[in-house]
Amino acid sequence: MGYNESLVEGRNVVIEAFRSGKSVDKVYVLDGCQDGPILTIKREAKKTGALIKYVDKSLLDNMSPTGKHQGVIAVTAAYEYADVSEIMDKARESGEPPFIVILDNIEDPHNLGAIIRSAHQAGAHGVIIPKNRAVGLTATVARTSAGALNYIPVAKVTNISKTIEDLKKEGLWFVCADMDGKIMYDLDLKGPIGVVIGSEGEGVSRLVKEKCDFVASIPMKGQIDSLNASVAAGILCFEIVRQRLKG
Amino acid sequence: MGYNESLVEGRNVVIEAFRSGKSVDKVYVLDGCQDGPILTIKREAKKTGALIKYVDKSLLDNMSPTGKHQGVIAVTAAYEYADVSEIMDKARESGEPPFIVILDNIEDPHNLGAIIRSAHQAGAHGVIIPKNRAVGLTATVARTSAGALNYIPVAKVTNISKTIEDLKKEGLWFVCADMDGKIMYDLDLKGPIGVVIGSEGEGVSRLVKEKCDFVASIPMKGQIDSLNASVAAGILCFEIVRQRLKG
Repeated sequence: MGYNESLVEGRNVVIEAFRSGKSVDKVYVLDGCQDGPILTIKREAKKTGALIKYVDKSLLDNMSPTGKHQGVIAVTAAYEYADVSEIMDKARESGEPPFIVILDNIEDPHNLGAIIRSAHQAGAHGVIIPKNRAVGLTATVARTSAGALNYIPVAKVTNISKTIEDLKKEGLWFVCADMDGKIMYDLDLKGPIGVVIGSEGEGVSRLVKEKCDFVASIPMKGQIDSLNASVAAGILCFEIVRQRLKG
Repeated sequence: MGYNESLVEGRNVVIEAFRSGKSVDKVYVLDGCQDGPILTIKREAKKTGALIKYVDKSLLDNMSPTGKHQGVIAVTAAYEYADVSEIMDKARESGEPPFIVILDNIEDPHNLGAIIRSAHQAGAHGVIIPKNRAVGLTATVARTSAGALNYIPVAKVTNISKTIEDLKKEGLWFVCADMDGKIMYDLDLKGPIGVVIGSEGEGVSRLVKEKCDFVASIPMKGQIDSLNASVAAGILCFEIVRQRLKG
């Protein structure tokens, strides 16, 4: 586990970094460079949201780890994902009932970062995200987590429903946040728990919701539908903190 | 109160809209137009974060309310701010103890929008923001509030400390969120209340904090400093909801 930035340089290496799905945060390009591979790199950067900075040769020379930058250096973000078993180990070591946050397809990196931050501050032992569709641990997520990503393990799984089933065998109860549930203050959230947060637009998917033991609602008084996903996640995680503190 | 978008057109009118501090969301510019006033408009758009779209003449002709667009049409956002007295009226009409959220220099429009959304969903009667430095009610704030801006009054005041003093005379108690306070679960937050949320980087300013009756802390277990400002605001607002529900 841990979050590191590293530099990759040279045209083909940088193109390969983009194509292999590495999270590229920033690309330094020699000012005035316009050939084919550089145009490809710019296109990939635009597609993935990487920042492009045009700089002069002396800066590239200074940054370059090997001296062979060929006019381009990229900053890539590398995060080592944890296994679900490591999260459970962490819970056991803490001596507290397990407390895991499961994200069912959060798409906005700012929301993902803020939720990881809240989960860590609430004392959760880990976060689980799905492999497909949802956003992964990009540099934006790391930044928005305000450092939390260095402390809380995040695991990526192929099938959220399957993971929930497996964790139920280890004694966890699952609660998902949705509007048609029981007011969260009336639920007992003190035991070993997995909190499931749905995506921004759609909420928790039907298949995942069916696996949950409870549906928890935040009581809302306003005339609109819902809360921001990261705010809702924070409120639910801290209701668990409250109940555990009050014993 | 209410949030409306309107079109302004013509070079001088659009430049004037920017200079008067109107919130311009988007500018439609005739493709290929490069003269002085258009360059000024582009510069202002860049400065304020307005989106520029290059379009052809037939589209501008179709959009134009008066037919005199001179190659440029801007979409401006107009929000009518409420007075603090309107917020207090709203509280009285509700029959509940007043519940007001005061934002001491929130700078990120996404945070401001999310907090307005949470305040409305928690049943707050209004939000108060300062006139200077902090972000105002831009189109981004309206969007992030997910419609809440149409329901909850937002007042802009010159001096937050002075407003707190005035509202104390009307019987409100003030609680600010900070790390060195009493755990929020142990405070009585059921009465007429103003919740003060500080800026993202600095927290609540010293002068404003001195005016508050209580400092409330969210109990944090992680190894980092704080929560995202909009998440912290949501958690504190819903602790008030919980206490009021439980009587």
